[in-house]
Amino acid sequence: MSSDGVAIYRGRERVATVDAADRGLAYGDGVFETIRVHAGAPVWWDAHVARLAGGAARLGFAPSEPAWLRAQVDALLAGHGAPTVLKLVLTRGAGGRGYRAADGLAPTLVLSRHPLPPPVPGPLVLRWCQLRMALQPALAGLKHLNRLEQVLARAEWRDEAIHEGLLLDAAGRVACATAANVFARIEGRWLTPKVDDCGVAGVARAWVLANVPDAAEATLWPADVERAEALFLCNAVRGILPVGRLGDHAWAPHPALAALQRQLGRAEPAFEGS
Amino acid sequence: MSSDGVAIYRGRERVATVDAADRGLAYGDGVFETIRVHAGAPVWWDAHVARLAGGAARLGFAPSEPAWLRAQVDALLAGHGAPTVLKLVLTRGAGGRGYRAADGLAPTLVLSRHPLPPPVPGPLVLRWCQLRMALQPALAGLKHLNRLEQVLARAEWRDEAIHEGLLLDAAGRVACATAANVFARIEGRWLTPKVDDCGVAGVARAWVLANVPDAAEATLWPADVERAEALFLCNAVRGILPVGRLGDHAWAPHPALAALQRQLGRAEPAFEGS
Repeated sequence: MSSDGVAIYRGRERVATVDAADRGLAYGDGVFETIRVHAGAPVWWDAHVARLAGGAARLGFAPSEPAWLRAQVDALLAGHGAPTVLKLVLTRGAGGRGYRAADGLAPTLVLSRHPLPPPVPGPLVLRWCQLRMALQPALAGLKHLNRLEQVLARAEWRDEAIHEGLLLDAAGRVACATAANVFARIEGRWLTPKVDDCGVAGVARAWVLANVPDAAEATLWPADVERAEALFLCNAVRGILPVGRLGDHAWAPHPALAALQRQLGRAEPAFEGS
Repeated sequence: MSSDGVAIYRGRERVATVDAADRGLAYGDGVFETIRVHAGAPVWWDAHVARLAGGAARLGFAPSEPAWLRAQVDALLAGHGAPTVLKLVLTRGAGGRGYRAADGLAPTLVLSRHPLPPPVPGPLVLRWCQLRMALQPALAGLKHLNRLEQVLARAEWRDEAIHEGLLLDAAGRVACATAANVFARIEGRWLTPKVDDCGVAGVARAWVLANVPDAAEATLWPADVERAEALFLCNAVRGILPVGRLGDHAWAPHPALAALQRQLGRAEPAFEGS
C-alpha cells in the first residue's frame, strides 16, 4: 500500500504506522467500512458512519467523532476526483497481550484509498460455497475484522469466470455472498436473509429495504433462491448487480430488476448505469 | 510495545513495521502462538511450531521454515534470561482490498517478548460466560487471529477476584475458558472437550492428553463440570492451574491434581511449583 493513499491515526493523532501490538491485528478487534467515492464524496456516508458507530458500541469501544472523521476522509480524498473506494478500519487500539482490553485505549483508524474494481461485463455468475457460516448472534450483522470465513469461502474457487460465491449458514439457510448481500425475487417481492445469526448488515442492503416497497427480510433456502424470478447481489462499492447464473440455474434480465437499478441510479448517481 | 522486544519480518526480510494493508489486520487472516520461555528457551517449541504450520496449512499459506524461525526467536530472546512470554503472529501477508488473497504473498511474522504474568495466589476462581461459542468446523482447533468471541467473553466481567470464564458452545456443551483449555476429573479420569466444532487445540492440553494415561476427550455438559471431582485449566504460559471455585461450586485440593502438576513440573521445569 502506498503511503500516499493511506492515513493512520491513534485516537486523533496522525501516526506513521500501525502498532505491531494493535488489537486489530492480534484479535481482529475492530470494524471496517468499504465506501464508494463518487465526485470526490463518500456515498451513503451517514449510513457507513452509523454502522461503524454501532459496531464499535457492540464491541465496547468509542467510535471516531463523525465530523472529525469526515474531515480526515475529505483530506485523503482531496484532489482525487476519479471514482475510488475508501476503506476505513477502526480498531480498539494497541494493547498488551491478553483478551482483556485495557481501559481508555486510543482507537486506531486506518483510512485508505483504492481503485474502483473494473465493472463486471454482464450479469454475475455465482457458485455455491462449501463453507457454511457459523451462527453467532453476538457478532452477526457487524462488519467486524474477523473475516476468516469469507477468506476461506473466497479461496474455494479460482475460475475467473465465476464472480461470487453464495454461502449457507450452519442451519442450511442462504446467508450472503462472500462480499455482498443477496436478494431473491419471489412472488413479486425482493427477499433477503436476516442478519441476526450471521452475515453483515450491508449498507446497500439497508438502502433496498428502506426504499423498495416490496423488499423484506425472509428465511431463504437454497431451493427458494434457485427458483427465484430474479436474483441480485448488492454492496456499497458496486450497488446492485444482477445475477445471470448460479451453478446450473440461469436467469434472463428481469424488468423489475432493471427498474430497481434505475431507481438506485436516480438516488445515487455513483451507481447510474451499473 | 517497545520496539526493543519486537521483531517484524516480511517473508525472511526484517522490516520496521507492520503494513497497514496486512491481511492479519484486515481480516484476522493468520495464526498465533503464545509460548512460555524458560532458561532462555521456548518451552514446547516443537509443538508450537507444528501447530503454527498446521494452522497456516489449513488457511492455505506457507508457514515459516522452522530452523529459520527458531534462529529469529533465539536472537530476540538472547540476553533475556528472566521468565518471559514469547508471542508469535504469522499472517498471510499484506495484500490489496478483497477477501481473495493474491498468490505468493510474503507472510508477515511478528515476534514479541512480554513479561510473564504474575502467578495466581491459590486456586482459580471461575465464572460461566454468557457468550456461546459458534460452531465452525472449518476453523475449530486453530489458534487463528479471529478472536472476537474471546474478547467479548473476557469483557463480561471486571471483578479482579474472578480469574477466568468458562464458555459453552452454541449446543450448550462446555468448550473452554477464554484463554485456556479445561479438564474435569470424572470417575477418576481427566476429561476435556473436543475441539472439532470450536475452541483451540492447546499445546498444554495436548501434553496432558499425550502424557496422562487417564486423560481423554469427551462431551462435557455444565452439570458434568460442576459435579466433577476436580477441575483445572491449562495453557502453554501457565501450565496446569487448579480451579477452586466456579460460581457457587467449590473444590478442595485434589491429590490427583497435585500429582499431575508434579508430573508436568518434572517434564517441563518451567512449570515446577506452578
